Amino acid sequence: MIVKIDELKAKVLTGIEKLGYKGEDAQIIAEVLLYAQMRGNNQGITKIATGGVPKADDVDEYKVVKTNKCGALVSGGHSMVASTRAADLAVELAAEHGVGIVASNHTYTSSGAIGYYARRISKQGYIAFVCVGNGNFSFVAPSGSAEAKFGTNPFAYAFPYEGGEVVFDNATAAMAYFGIVEAKIKGEQLPEGVGYDKDGNPSTDPEAVLSGSIGTFAGHKGFALSLFVQLLGGAFSLAGTPGVYEGDGSGTFVMAIDPGLLADKDQYMERATEMIKQVKSAKPLPGKQVVLPGEKGDAVARQAEESGEIEIADAIWEELIKFVEG
Amino acid sequence: MIVKIDELKAKVLTGIEKLGYKGEDAQIIAEVLLYAQMRGNNQGITKIATGGVPKADDVDEYKVVKTNKCGALVSGGHSMVASTRAADLAVELAAEHGVGIVASNHTYTSSGAIGYYARRISKQGYIAFVCVGNGNFSFVAPSGSAEAKFGTNPFAYAFPYEGGEVVFDNATAAMAYFGIVEAKIKGEQLPEGVGYDKDGNPSTDPEAVLSGSIGTFAGHKGFALSLFVQLLGGAFSLAGTPGVYEGDGSGTFVMAIDPGLLADKDQYMERATEMIKQVKSAKPLPGKQVVLPGEKGDAVARQAEESGEIEIADAIWEELIKFVEG
Repeated sequence: MIVKIDELKAKVLTGIEKLGYKGEDAQIIAEVLLYAQMRGNNQGITKIATGGVPKADDVDEYKVVKTNKCGALVSGGHSMVASTRAADLAVELAAEHGVGIVASNHTYTSSGAIGYYARRISKQGYIAFVCVGNGNFSFVAPSGSAEAKFGTNPFAYAFPYEGGEVVFDNATAAMAYFGIVEAKIKGEQLPEGVGYDKDGNPSTDPEAVLSGSIGTFAGHKGFALSLFVQLLGGAFSLAGTPGVYEGDGSGTFVMAIDPGLLADKDQYMERATEMIKQVKSAKPLPGKQVVLPGEKGDAVARQAEESGEIEIADAIWEELIKFVEG
Repeated sequence: MIVKIDELKAKVLTGIEKLGYKGEDAQIIAEVLLYAQMRGNNQGITKIATGGVPKADDVDEYKVVKTNKCGALVSGGHSMVASTRAADLAVELAAEHGVGIVASNHTYTSSGAIGYYARRISKQGYIAFVCVGNGNFSFVAPSGSAEAKFGTNPFAYAFPYEGGEVVFDNATAAMAYFGIVEAKIKGEQLPEGVGYDKDGNPSTDPEAVLSGSIGTFAGHKGFALSLFVQLLGGAFSLAGTPGVYEGDGSGTFVMAIDPGLLADKDQYMERATEMIKQVKSAKPLPGKQVVLPGEKGDAVARQAEESGEIEIADAIWEELIKFVEG
């Protein structure tokens, strides 16, 4: 279905306010959800009605717990609010120290499309790395098992170049949780090899997989990345891991690096831009394209902004309207 | 063939000295190559006779070019020497600033098993991230193309926990360059989907692929990681990218993070250790195991050290002996 962007924005904000958020917090959550929806990313508006955004009353108050050298530890707040503030704080620290690291704990899922935070940092001129562990929701099995031990543990990076920002954002799981929720709502099957049912048998049925587990992308390599994400967003940030310190919630790890730390910033920009040009010049295979991370989503978002309209799957839109009006 | 460890070490050092290296430089290169060989990693002794270690006369002198805040830029030296020194310097900077970033340029392939540098940092109590771009050797095609634009761009991480260190080390290419060289020497075929011949047709023949290109692991996701590696080890470090600033050679990016930056170090160690215990407790699928990154290689190395012997493929050993005695 084709929806006017203005109407989408209004309904999303109303939905978030209905969950109890106000003022700047509501604006931030709306912005993060719309960032995903405008890019056709599965971290979008479906979260509002499906519990992906907890009620404001269930969220601890946001606070800065500690600052030390180039780092800061923050706690509480909805994950999208805490991660947005962490991104801005990391940039402040990087401006002073060359690198800024901010980690959070006591946040609750979902962090949304974490490319948003990485892009936010790069738009301010810094190289970004962001990852989110999960403190209490085990849904992803390590390679070699079907027993869920982690969340979908996404990571993102972004870097500035003369054409804008390159932004990569992906779950270390074979598929994002809300991708499976979306498939269920749309009545679609999952690709082979993504998930297991509750008895550990391979399954392509999103409903069976939602009560079972999913694997990591690229098997052992994705598992290794998932572990790294949990280390930074869990252990380092003093957040929980499913089964361990669950009371400390989930954690985000945000790092900003000044690209001018070792080079002049202009030298960096020139080399980053030339590198991008080089890789984009590769001759495509028949029927293929060489696409930068984030490039397709950016084009979709630009097109939606220019036309003032966006296509949203009927079931996803109806679910939001039902929630907002219900 | 079964080879005595002492004999292996002696032959490797002689081989490196034959390439013109002396003293500490020769010791470091031997240690990095043996680290890989002892783990059954394809970044081992095959490099000596196949050009993976350039002659000492072809390598620029190592120097620290610049220090700024928590960062340092170094230049020259064989990649294994520069990267080892970069790792130790990153630890020094992290001890003072909480994070240490050292990047290098004007180094030449090969950097070897870069898990060595990551582990070296973690053995000193820090979280490590290491990656290596390639300045002048294009062998890996971006997703959607068979035209090589990058090197195999490996990255590694390591983190300390009470059981030792978890060390992940992998090419962002579908297979490491020296994995393909090894397959050629052993007369083996490559797995499907790894490489292309010089005309861009899929191929499993290592010889055809060596004159063609290989893809990235997990398609677009591995490509995204390859790009990130080249950004950090190329643009950020003022090194080259194939086709751009090739005269500035290859670059390594090394980062050490103090795990006590935001937490007490004991708190971090406890959480990292509990997390590892949790993931290892996952019930294995029939016939499978839940294996931490680096765990298999570590077991192989331990076993070799304890027995004083190691198995090496005949062709690989003969090639080294021929080089050393030739």
